[in-house]
Amino acid sequence: MRKILVIGSGKSSSYLIKYLLDKSSSESLHITIGDINIKNAKKLIDHHKNAKAITLDVFDETSRIEAIKNADIVVSMLPARFHIEVAKNCIAYKKHMVTASYISKEMQALDSNAKANGVVLMNEIGVDPGIDHMSAMQVLDNIRDKDGKIILFESFTGGLVAPESDNNLWNYKFTWNPRNVVIAGQGSAAKFLQEGTYKYIPYNRLFRRTEFLDIDGFGRFEVYANRDSLKYQSVYGLDNIKTLYRGTMRRVGFSRAWNIFVTLGMTDDSYTIDDSENMSYRDFVNAFLPYSHSDSVELKLRHALKIDQDDIVWDKLVELDIFNANKNVELKKATPAQILQKILMDSWTLQEDDKDMIVMYHKFGYELNGKKHQIDATMVVVGKDQTYTAMAKTVGLPVAIATLAILNGKITTPGVQLPITKEVYKPILNELKDFGIQFNEKEAPYLGYNPLNN
Amino acid sequence: MRKILVIGSGKSSSYLIKYLLDKSSSESLHITIGDINIKNAKKLIDHHKNAKAITLDVFDETSRIEAIKNADIVVSMLPARFHIEVAKNCIAYKKHMVTASYISKEMQALDSNAKANGVVLMNEIGVDPGIDHMSAMQVLDNIRDKDGKIILFESFTGGLVAPESDNNLWNYKFTWNPRNVVIAGQGSAAKFLQEGTYKYIPYNRLFRRTEFLDIDGFGRFEVYANRDSLKYQSVYGLDNIKTLYRGTMRRVGFSRAWNIFVTLGMTDDSYTIDDSENMSYRDFVNAFLPYSHSDSVELKLRHALKIDQDDIVWDKLVELDIFNANKNVELKKATPAQILQKILMDSWTLQEDDKDMIVMYHKFGYELNGKKHQIDATMVVVGKDQTYTAMAKTVGLPVAIATLAILNGKITTPGVQLPITKEVYKPILNELKDFGIQFNEKEAPYLGYNPLNN
Repeated sequence: MRKILVIGSGKSSSYLIKYLLDKSSSESLHITIGDINIKNAKKLIDHHKNAKAITLDVFDETSRIEAIKNADIVVSMLPARFHIEVAKNCIAYKKHMVTASYISKEMQALDSNAKANGVVLMNEIGVDPGIDHMSAMQVLDNIRDKDGKIILFESFTGGLVAPESDNNLWNYKFTWNPRNVVIAGQGSAAKFLQEGTYKYIPYNRLFRRTEFLDIDGFGRFEVYANRDSLKYQSVYGLDNIKTLYRGTMRRVGFSRAWNIFVTLGMTDDSYTIDDSENMSYRDFVNAFLPYSHSDSVELKLRHALKIDQDDIVWDKLVELDIFNANKNVELKKATPAQILQKILMDSWTLQEDDKDMIVMYHKFGYELNGKKHQIDATMVVVGKDQTYTAMAKTVGLPVAIATLAILNGKITTPGVQLPITKEVYKPILNELKDFGIQFNEKEAPYLGYNPLNN
Repeated sequence: MRKILVIGSGKSSSYLIKYLLDKSSSESLHITIGDINIKNAKKLIDHHKNAKAITLDVFDETSRIEAIKNADIVVSMLPARFHIEVAKNCIAYKKHMVTASYISKEMQALDSNAKANGVVLMNEIGVDPGIDHMSAMQVLDNIRDKDGKIILFESFTGGLVAPESDNNLWNYKFTWNPRNVVIAGQGSAAKFLQEGTYKYIPYNRLFRRTEFLDIDGFGRFEVYANRDSLKYQSVYGLDNIKTLYRGTMRRVGFSRAWNIFVTLGMTDDSYTIDDSENMSYRDFVNAFLPYSHSDSVELKLRHALKIDQDDIVWDKLVELDIFNANKNVELKKATPAQILQKILMDSWTLQEDDKDMIVMYHKFGYELNGKKHQIDATMVVVGKDQTYTAMAKTVGLPVAIATLAILNGKITTPGVQLPITKEVYKPILNELKDFGIQFNEKEAPYLGYNPLNN
């Protein structure tokens, strides 16, 4: 039996573990799932003969090393900041390792050491990052293989609620870390390339400069720009590209309503409010509006943000119950962002029967034989239930497939890797199709942003 | 002769030096002015027999200590961050020291050491901070002396252009460090107290939540909130106050126009623009607007910010020449804030005949014998010319008067001080009147923010 150690059995591990268990007999695998709390691990294993759950505190060096030494390959599903000690041990004991997280500076620094020891440290092989890299590189490589010149690449991903569970005015529920949603876009301006010029969008404009996208069968979405659209420009080989834009997908209308929170200052995470514990939701809203002895919080807000009587955006606010004077924040010395998160979690937490949905949209523009072309590639994955979510599926399956491919010597390049080479993405994207994870590719007339260029 | 060492002979030293020279015979003073460049010092001394200019590099420890040892008292007019080494030497050689700067953490840390050595380290004794402290404390102490209970304190200061030199659409020119104007208000939300509740204004709303003020003979002004209105709450003894608000004064309409730069992202100082050197002013504006192959930068901006055809705010932008495609930024790897500063300096630099103006407005609300009262105290100082500016006058005279008072043993309390005690502010405010620096105090009907409280 080949021994796989999976560290972490949180919400993104269900499909990963299921895949490995399903292959365990034919591939001779034994899977050990280590977690500080093994309740969920046991549930996921469900007494399968080729697996066991062990209590593992990743900060306890002795037991961590013991578990790693015992394995042939290690999968870390921990939060990104906890990977690094695991990775160091993996190099020391010459075990390959797979994570779905962004490559941190600390991880990147292990590259030469990993190479010297022949160890593969595969990262960014979940959904975003992961499937976005692989699916983009496959189309980009295809275009380059036939000598096309890439002039535009736009890529958008969204973690959303499935249409059948989409029953609030925001068309949104939290399907992943709520905190990341609340503070999304903060910091320096969003930067991207449009027709050869750099463009910048400050945070206060980010949610008002959205663009619309349609996906067959799923209707219309909107996107707001990611902080750094240029992060993978060189990695993808796009140094001479004219338009490079990455963004986050939401249902239409989300961003315009969200911008109310941004404008009022409710998403700020840089200071705490002294008496937040005893504030009502209404007090919280009122803290961002001028004092009045008689005007209502509602009218002050409508006036400050010029919200018309018949603007649906207002009903979105009311739906969240933010004007309730009887619901208390109950968080000590919280930042506005933390308070807003709490308010949103009252309304946006997935209910037992709710399903999530992952959407991805790539747009490629290229020149071939003097003509301009466009390819639109879209993917939609809908979750099955609260355990087998679309998020867990699209994160866990690429990780699982890559783990087995490394174990079977099909992915061999050592060092700190991300899945952008054919060796890696081809077999994985192929196998993902068997699980219903696939892109719908369409040729479209090239538009770009300058019709005179066509 | 008593020996005074003045370090720094920049734009805020003119009145300081003139005051000391004028008193030098009657008070037996000899003034040494140390600067790394003595050109301006020599001009200010103008061959006066009781003064000399010396070349002094404040970073050269030997010559710095030599100069301090030779003096009876030291005035540092250097930028705030350069005071600390001077202050340490002053304690070591038991010399009193005066600065017009905010007390830094490093300065505050010298308090017990200064006390142990009987050394006065007087700070924040310019205009803002300085005259604001003294004039506020005088009224607050008067109210408290007659057992009034203070319920409201609002305080506003502005460094502006004098009415006779006010000839642009912004009614503004740079009379002090332009960089501070461009990045004003950035960071955490502005925080203040209104009728007993904390209020927060995020940066993107700061310049849209202004209030108006009138000063007899000078017309209408507007104010935007300072970052931390509560900084001196305890120092002023206002822990139980209901309303505490500090702000910056501008002429009416400035803030609404300025907010265009904030909204577009042009005041951001947190990232650099790669090719800023070769950008035109027009390119810079366009970097914050969506790409279009045909629409003008002007119309894109009007549309993005919903600026009507007949809105004067537009003419303010045009006046700054920000749409000029032939003027280049010429700054390498500059932040948006640095580029905006350069553009503004083209238009807002004081011309040879221009005069500046300092305005200050305090509003005090208090209860006495069950009745509510209000006192409005205003001060306006207009500059004489480009050397004898209102800024140099209001910064330099309190520093000079305090220096002489310390030398004459009238201010004696050792330690790190600011001018909030009667011992300090009374004689200084009195003497400032001789120079035309005085407050116009008026009783007014108490308004506050809640008429039901009256």
